[in-house]
Amino acid sequence: MSSKKKKSPKVVIGVVDTMFARFDMGAAARDELAQCPGYGSKFTVTSRTVPGFKDLAVAAKNLIEKDGAAIVVALGMPGSAPIDKQCAHEASQGLMTAQLMTSTPILEVFVHEDESDDPAILASVFENRSRSHARNAYWMLFEPEQLRARAGQGVRQGFADAGPLR
Amino acid sequence: MSSKKKKSPKVVIGVVDTMFARFDMGAAARDELAQCPGYGSKFTVTSRTVPGFKDLAVAAKNLIEKDGAAIVVALGMPGSAPIDKQCAHEASQGLMTAQLMTSTPILEVFVHEDESDDPAILASVFENRSRSHARNAYWMLFEPEQLRARAGQGVRQGFADAGPLR
Amino acid sequence: MSSKKKKSPKVVIGVVDTMFARFDMGAAARDELAQCPGYGSKFTVTSRTVPGFKDLAVAAKNLIEKDGAAIVVALGMPGSAPIDKQCAHEASQGLMTAQLMTSTPILEVFVHEDESDDPAILASVFENRSRSHARNAYWMLFEPEQLRARAGQGVRQGFADAGPLR
Amino acid sequence: MSSKKKKSPKVVIGVVDTMFARFDMGAAARDELAQCPGYGSKFTVTSRTVPGFKDLAVAAKNLIEKDGAAIVVALGMPGSAPIDKQCAHEASQGLMTAQLMTSTPILEVFVHEDESDDPAILASVFENRSRSHARNAYWMLFEPEQLRARAGQGVRQGFADAGPLR
Amino acid sequence: MSSKKKKSPKVVIGVVDTMFARFDMGAAARDELAQCPGYGSKFTVTSRTVPGFKDLAVAAKNLIEKDGAAIVVALGMPGSAPIDKQCAHEASQGLMTAQLMTSTPILEVFVHEDESDDPAILASVFENRSRSHARNAYWMLFEPEQLRARAGQGVRQGFADAGPLR
Repeated sequence: MSSKKKKSPKVVIGVVDTMFARFDMGAAARDELAQCPGYGSKFTVTSRTVPGFKDLAVAAKNLIEKDGAAIVVALGMPGSAPIDKQCAHEASQGLMTAQLMTSTPILEVFVHEDESDDPAILASVFENRSRSHARNAYWMLFEPEQLRARAGQGVRQGFADAGPLR
Repeated sequence: MSSKKKKSPKVVIGVVDTMFARFDMGAAARDELAQCPGYGSKFTVTSRTVPGFKDLAVAAKNLIEKDGAAIVVALGMPGSAPIDKQCAHEASQGLMTAQLMTSTPILEVFVHEDESDDPAILASVFENRSRSHARNAYWMLFEPEQLRARAGQGVRQGFADAGPLR
Repeated sequence: MSSKKKKSPKVVIGVVDTMFARFDMGAAARDELAQCPGYGSKFTVTSRTVPGFKDLAVAAKNLIEKDGAAIVVALGMPGSAPIDKQCAHEASQGLMTAQLMTSTPILEVFVHEDESDDPAILASVFENRSRSHARNAYWMLFEPEQLRARAGQGVRQGFADAGPLR
Repeated sequence: MSSKKKKSPKVVIGVVDTMFARFDMGAAARDELAQCPGYGSKFTVTSRTVPGFKDLAVAAKNLIEKDGAAIVVALGMPGSAPIDKQCAHEASQGLMTAQLMTSTPILEVFVHEDESDDPAILASVFENRSRSHARNAYWMLFEPEQLRARAGQGVRQGFADAGPLR
Repeated sequence: MSSKKKKSPKVVIGVVDTMFARFDMGAAARDELAQCPGYGSKFTVTSRTVPGFKDLAVAAKNLIEKDGAAIVVALGMPGSAPIDKQCAHEASQGLMTAQLMTSTPILEVFVHEDESDDPAILASVFENRSRSHARNAYWMLFEPEQLRARAGQGVRQGFADAGPLR
């Protein structure tokens, strides 16, 4: 299969992360993508690192516009102070606007520093959420039926699924 | 009638829902639309499922721009934590901007997980609100006089109507 | 006068209201406009009704872009729960953006359900505010000197004027 | 000098104010501009009055786009209730967006009704802030070195300067 | 090297600061940039001063569009009152939108007046954060591998780094 498709342009998945986060979210996302079918043949991954989560939006937009990304996974860690929540809001609005300007999905993967007091639990949230959304990005491009099959199922990333209402 | 109109392009109604919600809101909306006059002849329905409610806006925009939807019903369930309210705000702003960029209505159908503690009541809110707004979408395209007749009447979706002021 | 101007295209004033409101705000606005000089000759009124106040923005934009409205009066009633305040904020942002995208004024006429506990007072606020802003729309198009003469005068709509600082 | 430049188009400074404010802020701004060097020869002033501060943004945008203003001073008075703060936020966002859409500065001059309980003090804030920002508008167009010289100096409008950190 | 490149257009880094801040943040940023390799040969710095932090966004946009800046460092000091937090939010949203409209990064460098009660500590935050983000701007243009190497390392500006999660 790869020999036939070698000359068709590969789909690009963008990954953008930050120096500010206290976990290497981008590495987790890239590792997950590397395990998806067709990695390196039907799709490739392009990455950027920016200072903080408020710098993600324009970087994601440039991954789409200049690097041709068909979808972007944008990973960041808002801190726990009230001002951090406001900054997270601004960062999210930016990611929303970037998506609408480019008509291209950007999956926002934010882990709030105060989601757990236990560093081990927090690390697992970072790891799992980054991986789950990387997988979602792959599904959105190549296997949308995976999403459809889970519609309304209370699916979560980072913690256990809530499940459907009973 | 259908034989005459077979060659005219059918109007498309878009439906986008999420894996995150704990109820299959998209199924309820699609079922309601299937009961509207002209289903399959004068209009068809196109659907997408995205991970969460913050992913609805760009998906709705793409249903309009790429799938030709004349209106979109966007269904999601914000959770009950404070951060979920902020995310709901961002998701709503995105849906608002998507409408203005495309000059096309997107009906936001959000059921907040904390609207009721009783799962049975909450399920009925999911069901009714999804159906009511699907019906509203149909009316906006084909029977605007239905909306006009109810102007200022305190109409609600999900719970009972508030009715006009007395 | 009307015989001379009969062939010049009439100015259009748009009115958009909701099923959600508990008072027929659109009827009050239209009635006020019908009492303004030149109604039906120098200007006409075009109306739409939408489900709720978050649907006003795109409807107002379409009244401008597709129906040629030179100004729009957008009428709605936010409810009294905290989530309603957030929704009102989103609706207002949408109306703001719609104005800036079209370079056309849209007068936001919102009556919050909790402005009075007394239904009779609330009804008078609905009536007066809807009428006052309809009049403002007329002034903005045809008699801007009326606005200029009241600059800094603490003019209010719905309740009594605050008046200038003493 | 004026004889040489008589035929070059004069720079336009826009002023927009409201009926809602309880002080004639536009008059103070215009009076200050009338005292700036080159008033009437190198620059002129164009004014509009709108109903309230949420109407400032589109009016400012039209002063730029239709009246050719190179900068606009937008003056308004948010009230003291919580809902007024939210409205002020929406008005500010509109002024921000209008600037970015036109790549033209709009100086927001807001005096909050609750900045002082003393009407005499509040009046002086209205007067001083309106004048200071009118002067800033002049400086931005014609004497940017005045701004540069005050960088990081804790300059305020309306109340006394905070001064640089000690 | 400089002799070869003399005729190639130099990259421009923009710096915009305010009169409102109580520290000369722009001077600190410019001094840091003057110490970066290639200052004056491979890149130059262009500056503007505006009244307050809500004026930064359009000024930054103009540095990009009219002065050709490839990146902008935008420096400001929000005050400590609640209304200042709201204004900071509006200013941040403006900087976010300006980035997305120009597809060009603008590094927001805000020091909140209440980050420390001790003027000496606050001054060091102003100094360090302004310098760190000026350096980040340089890295983003010329040494992106510096950012990549620090991904997920809990890097801070102004105070000590938080470091990665343990």
